[in-house]
Amino acid sequence: MSHNILFQQGNMQLLSEGLLDGTITLKELLSHGNTGIGTGEGIDGELIIIDGVGYKINHHGETEILNDSFNITFADTHFDHYQLLTEVDDVNLTTCLNDIKQLISGNNLFFSVKLHGNFKQITTRSAKKSVKPYPSLEKVGENQVEFTAKNVTGTLISYYSPMLYQGVTVAGFHSHFLADDLSIGGHVLTAEIDHVTAYTQIFRSFLQSNPIDDFDFIHADLSDINKLDTVIKNVE
Amino acid sequence: MSHNILFQQGNMQLLSEGLLDGTITLKELLSHGNTGIGTGEGIDGELIIIDGVGYKINHHGETEILNDSFNITFADTHFDHYQLLTEVDDVNLTTCLNDIKQLISGNNLFFSVKLHGNFKQITTRSAKKSVKPYPSLEKVGENQVEFTAKNVTGTLISYYSPMLYQGVTVAGFHSHFLADDLSIGGHVLTAEIDHVTAYTQIFRSFLQSNPIDDFDFIHADLSDINKLDTVIKNVE
Repeated sequence: MSHNILFQQGNMQLLSEGLLDGTITLKELLSHGNTGIGTGEGIDGELIIIDGVGYKINHHGETEILNDSFNITFADTHFDHYQLLTEVDDVNLTTCLNDIKQLISGNNLFFSVKLHGNFKQITTRSAKKSVKPYPSLEKVGENQVEFTAKNVTGTLISYYSPMLYQGVTVAGFHSHFLADDLSIGGHVLTAEIDHVTAYTQIFRSFLQSNPIDDFDFIHADLSDINKLDTVIKNVE
Repeated sequence: MSHNILFQQGNMQLLSEGLLDGTITLKELLSHGNTGIGTGEGIDGELIIIDGVGYKINHHGETEILNDSFNITFADTHFDHYQLLTEVDDVNLTTCLNDIKQLISGNNLFFSVKLHGNFKQITTRSAKKSVKPYPSLEKVGENQVEFTAKNVTGTLISYYSPMLYQGVTVAGFHSHFLADDLSIGGHVLTAEIDHVTAYTQIFRSFLQSNPIDDFDFIHADLSDINKLDTVIKNVE
């Protein structure tokens, strides 16, 4: 267990190629961290892990507490060792995150931002689970649903990765949210901050794990790197 | 300590941007593996680690045993848990490595190949250390020297990385060599195998570590991903 490591199961190329099998259980993922974001097998909702508890925001917008055996396709996770950075008022999320990146000289670093507090408005997304044989990315996109709430208190977990790692992960910020009362959550599209406390944690190392026992993964043709652009635009 | 992890200090983008400071000592690197390849501060020779001993092949073609405090810019390392794969006769290295990749269905995997035995011919490269302020890559290239030997017995350590990771590491195979009698070694350019025993080790995870305490790294402009092409061609 190290606070200096960001663990990632899978990579964005697998998603872009429709390799959506779950390849790690929540229980095993939690051995790599007590905080994180991800998605379930077949893009089964949007996940957030807070204080060692895994939550899924499903395509109805409901929040479910996950059990140990839940199967995960893609996730970033780490052990919480956030440092208090600052209080933030009256700004939109994109500006807030970019300001934080400047403040910690984080352009070339892997780091996480945690925001907790009140949001004037937040818009999130989740998806309905697809089953095998998995549909094209466009079809998966059609299974996505958006949710909006105003004046909601909750936790936002974001990971920042440098540009070089686009495709291995999501370059830039990738943020998930969960309301304290579980009333809204998911992959964050836009948000307006009322007042939040901002915490950051910088990682020395990026530990990326691949499903080397998965037949589909081993035998997939992953030579076309350009396909990645589509899925990454889809995620952002 | 895990046999499933390939550890890497630094990334190829740092080399391409002339960030050549040593950022890890040999002693610390050896905590991540007893087998590996790399280069010293300022592209100070070509390194190979075998059975927990670090060797540098310098620009005169001489092999030095490194001490714990030797400073390393870039290295791949792992704990030796190679499995015997096959015996190989009378073939060039490129064909041999590609055949092994097919045999283990390794296209999408991080893995290492170790070859030990007799080579009909081997051509390697090393470089003279550059000092700060580091010269351009072209100048570093001018400090490179090639060596050739015929009928030599030794160990070749190679790492294979999938295409997706080009720039983070060297996609494809990246091989270093050391003769049993230390008479030749370095970054392998070409080789003709007489008879070798081939071993492989597959990694589930890739642990990539960045020099987050290094001022030059933190403040470098690493937004131009395209520069990478030059350095990678230079390495291959």
